[in-house]
Amino acid sequence: MRIGFLGLGNMGRAMANNLVHAGHELTVYNRSRRSAEALAAEGARIADHPANAANQEIVITMLADDNAVESVVFGGHGVLEGMPRDGLHISMSTISPDLSRRMSFAHRERGQHYVAAPVFGRPEAAAAAQLFILAAGAKEALAKAKPVFELLGQRTFEISERPEDANMIKLFGNFLLTCVLEGLGEVFAVARKAEINPNTVFEVLSGTLFGAPAYKNYGARMIEEKFSPAGFKMLLGLKDVRLMLEAAERLSAPMPFANIVHDRFLSAIANGYGDLDWSALALVIAQSAGLSRTASEIRFDAAD
Amino acid sequence: MRIGFLGLGNMGRAMANNLVHAGHELTVYNRSRRSAEALAAEGARIADHPANAANQEIVITMLADDNAVESVVFGGHGVLEGMPRDGLHISMSTISPDLSRRMSFAHRERGQHYVAAPVFGRPEAAAAAQLFILAAGAKEALAKAKPVFELLGQRTFEISERPEDANMIKLFGNFLLTCVLEGLGEVFAVARKAEINPNTVFEVLSGTLFGAPAYKNYGARMIEEKFSPAGFKMLLGLKDVRLMLEAAERLSAPMPFANIVHDRFLSAIANGYGDLDWSALALVIAQSAGLSRTASEIRFDAAD
Amino acid sequence: MRIGFLGLGNMGRAMANNLVHAGHELTVYNRSRRSAEALAAEGARIADHPANAANQEIVITMLADDNAVESVVFGGHGVLEGMPRDGLHISMSTISPDLSRRMSFAHRERGQHYVAAPVFGRPEAAAAAQLFILAAGAKEALAKAKPVFELLGQRTFEISERPEDANMIKLFGNFLLTCVLEGLGEVFAVARKAEINPNTVFEVLSGTLFGAPAYKNYGARMIEEKFSPAGFKMLLGLKDVRLMLEAAERLSAPMPFANIVHDRFLSAIANGYGDLDWSALALVIAQSAGLSRTASEIRFDAAD
Amino acid sequence: MRIGFLGLGNMGRAMANNLVHAGHELTVYNRSRRSAEALAAEGARIADHPANAANQEIVITMLADDNAVESVVFGGHGVLEGMPRDGLHISMSTISPDLSRRMSFAHRERGQHYVAAPVFGRPEAAAAAQLFILAAGAKEALAKAKPVFELLGQRTFEISERPEDANMIKLFGNFLLTCVLEGLGEVFAVARKAEINPNTVFEVLSGTLFGAPAYKNYGARMIEEKFSPAGFKMLLGLKDVRLMLEAAERLSAPMPFANIVHDRFLSAIANGYGDLDWSALALVIAQSAGLSRTASEIRFDAAD
Repeated sequence: MRIGFLGLGNMGRAMANNLVHAGHELTVYNRSRRSAEALAAEGARIADHPANAANQEIVITMLADDNAVESVVFGGHGVLEGMPRDGLHISMSTISPDLSRRMSFAHRERGQHYVAAPVFGRPEAAAAAQLFILAAGAKEALAKAKPVFELLGQRTFEISERPEDANMIKLFGNFLLTCVLEGLGEVFAVARKAEINPNTVFEVLSGTLFGAPAYKNYGARMIEEKFSPAGFKMLLGLKDVRLMLEAAERLSAPMPFANIVHDRFLSAIANGYGDLDWSALALVIAQSAGLSRTASEIRFDAAD
Repeated sequence: MRIGFLGLGNMGRAMANNLVHAGHELTVYNRSRRSAEALAAEGARIADHPANAANQEIVITMLADDNAVESVVFGGHGVLEGMPRDGLHISMSTISPDLSRRMSFAHRERGQHYVAAPVFGRPEAAAAAQLFILAAGAKEALAKAKPVFELLGQRTFEISERPEDANMIKLFGNFLLTCVLEGLGEVFAVARKAEINPNTVFEVLSGTLFGAPAYKNYGARMIEEKFSPAGFKMLLGLKDVRLMLEAAERLSAPMPFANIVHDRFLSAIANGYGDLDWSALALVIAQSAGLSRTASEIRFDAAD
Repeated sequence: MRIGFLGLGNMGRAMANNLVHAGHELTVYNRSRRSAEALAAEGARIADHPANAANQEIVITMLADDNAVESVVFGGHGVLEGMPRDGLHISMSTISPDLSRRMSFAHRERGQHYVAAPVFGRPEAAAAAQLFILAAGAKEALAKAKPVFELLGQRTFEISERPEDANMIKLFGNFLLTCVLEGLGEVFAVARKAEINPNTVFEVLSGTLFGAPAYKNYGARMIEEKFSPAGFKMLLGLKDVRLMLEAAERLSAPMPFANIVHDRFLSAIANGYGDLDWSALALVIAQSAGLSRTASEIRFDAAD
Repeated sequence: MRIGFLGLGNMGRAMANNLVHAGHELTVYNRSRRSAEALAAEGARIADHPANAANQEIVITMLADDNAVESVVFGGHGVLEGMPRDGLHISMSTISPDLSRRMSFAHRERGQHYVAAPVFGRPEAAAAAQLFILAAGAKEALAKAKPVFELLGQRTFEISERPEDANMIKLFGNFLLTCVLEGLGEVFAVARKAEINPNTVFEVLSGTLFGAPAYKNYGARMIEEKFSPAGFKMLLGLKDVRLMLEAAERLSAPMPFANIVHDRFLSAIANGYGDLDWSALALVIAQSAGLSRTASEIRFDAAD
């Protein structure tokens, strides 16, 4: 199939790679050309502008945020302009439900199809085609997208016929991850002040009620204090919780937990941690409890 | 072994039952005699007062809260008084680390041994001997308690030599459960206002990053809105988050998430939900978002 | 002087009236023509579009929010287009510092002058020329605006040479007012639950440390429960706290109190109170404490 | 009149001084004798123990906290024991409504009278007999206490016949003060990050809607950053907001603003600011916004 792919960051590059290796004719576009060239070496064609990349049976966007998507899709020589009638746009970026809905309308007006398909998973999962894909849109469009999803992920959830629902659920997931970060962060700060080994705490929690990937991944990172290189940066975490809060505000729904983590991100960024992994919220929490040293400088006596 | 058991509520009754069926000579004490009589029918002896029940090789307490433990242990004809020199007290109640430490000192002064061993698990898990046990205390005391733990639980975590550490970690666990309740509650409220089926949301979340018992049990309860009969009452949830906040305050550690859930519990209780399951926090959250009807009155169109 | 005036809501109408009565040649513009006609009867000229009203020595805008200002100023036939070189735009609306800064740049590029001059005061204060005016901009521009300010307010604060500073301080003021609403609301809810007469509480507080207009006005309203007609609507309160939070976010500064009141406004609006006076936050607070009845239904025994 | 006075801290000493200078026969008691000796030089008699000081027509307690009051009143050789039948106890300490109620019952059982009369005012106001007194109790008891109040304060508010109501309102006042601290602190942090002179902000706010002592005193302190010597220490601020939260919890009333300031106090104390003036909350707020330097190190350009 002829597929266009826009956005070759850490995630997009890995995904595009899987498509080209599966034999699809890929046309890629990226703001900075260098990432595109790596894919060209694998057989992809490089487009000069978004419209060019979009002039395919299927075009996939995997971009950083609402602004990037908005300019690439609605801008001059953009996706909307470039897509053929009956083409399909699969939007896999983490963006606001509101922008997703606006794209959905704009495509429909032009006789184009649109599916929102944000994902859960880090770059390694993308490379291993192990993403979880949350797909929403008209049934026929979902059916057409299915072979693509099968090349990119381990499982696809069909959410509903309204594309924006998938974007909302993606925000829910990231919001709940930040709740895990804050919850664990508070627990570890108290543990350290009580001179209880965070490792012991973590072993008990993840061995009983909290044995999910969210806790295992981030609990381990917090305890090892490996905040750099970032798997997911503070600045991106802030972006997503802001999208969550904006979506909730439109619906007049208070989200006090989201406020707390939003403030933590602001504080983290104000204190210079913007490029650390978002699990470094634990540092900000520890400092608010007067723990200026990192935990690793404290000695714990093992229980046995 | 001769074992005393004080506190025959839903949890204690199931645990005592397992001990008596394993062939131990059990002497039980309960404030209201009726629960004790059921165990007497299984072969347990009934004590007139705590001291009497405590006059054994091992005495286990499984009581409602700090006040109950304090009066049963330190009061006249209490556990401290009744225990023999060299006896072992296993405190399995969910109580403050502070009270646990005070008991530890008091027993040591009298040449008695003390282990804190709070548990994770509901009454059904207690009945099935599937509890998780968090045990802390001196090594020899833990060794002596081990056969008892093996009859009561599926796994024992040895925490440290300081009994109060086990109580603190128990509070951490319950605190993180309340964070799950609040997080899911906020998500479901927004989902309902966005007319997204909470079931779909739940399926995605528990099928990806949040596949732990904490999410599965409470997410399902929230969606089914089965808040009564309570598995764990609001009023007990309030008690435990209060213990968490008090312990954190002594250590000068702020816990903003704990404050949020503490306020939710107060609001729930003020609005008459004190005897509902603590997952009914979802109701209070929904009402704060203007959702006066329960979700089940809203119709959702399935995605397929 | 020839003055243009755009925006004839409750505030603008009263202010424009003072200008026309002082003998200025006023040209007015309002989206709905009816308000303009009332002023025409007093001697004002009605403009067909914003550019027309802006083609004067001085043009004043007093509009509802950022969107209104943005379209009236930057839109076709807008203020930017209509103002003469060397004209002066006095922006008195409560808007974001960011939009104020953008207007400041846009005017400068065209050789036009710009002053931000938001106000404190309700419509009655505007009618009585008793507003407090927070003015910021270049010195010469402020000097030129001075005679206008003297006709509209009781006192002008010259803030700085950066227009956006005045807008920020206006947001500070409204934010602190919402803190007074929340603080008093929490106090009154606890007082009612403790069966203490809120009147007594209010008399003590306003007679000692809190004798400022902010407390006196809103405390009295809360106690009398006169939430309608609104002096300042919930929906406007929400708008202003949102502007405050957005401005703070750009600066990476957490504002936890602003989050709390933001959530209260959302909850108020979700529960149908959007058109009540913003002091009706007290109702939402009371309900969160389980006080479903209004205070006036509760009988208090007087102290004497 | 023969008056006993217990508690000669900064406040108590100044108050006792006023009483002895007005010609009353004063018997004083203080845990550390040195403060008592200064008063003896002015003509007061020193009691050996609380009961001795309490054996007068009127006994006044002005102690640090609930624990101090509880041990001095209920302990052996305590106030309860020492007071004559028909004696009057005036409790002026800032304590929990709950303890006040318990004292009220205990005195009634012994045929003794009890008035709660906490005050607003710092030591200088106490010395100048300019305190505000919040008095509650039976009418005859209040009448008997009146001459004492006239020697100590500028104005007495008669609250109700229930002593604990006065203690609750005192907590309300201190809670609202902490809200002023937090509100101003957030505003000043944002102002500094926006490079707006906090002085300008303060002049506008206190010159318009917020011209009350609470704002004037603390705003000035924050801007001057004179946090030491403390007028009122962080640790005392924490104590009072804790009492507020405990009283609200008993009534099942959430107080989210109180939670925020409670956390700020914990953070301040954890970071070593426990002995600074409570207005140093501004420092903690500034740090959470990444402002590690104090404001005075930042240069502001004056508006004129």
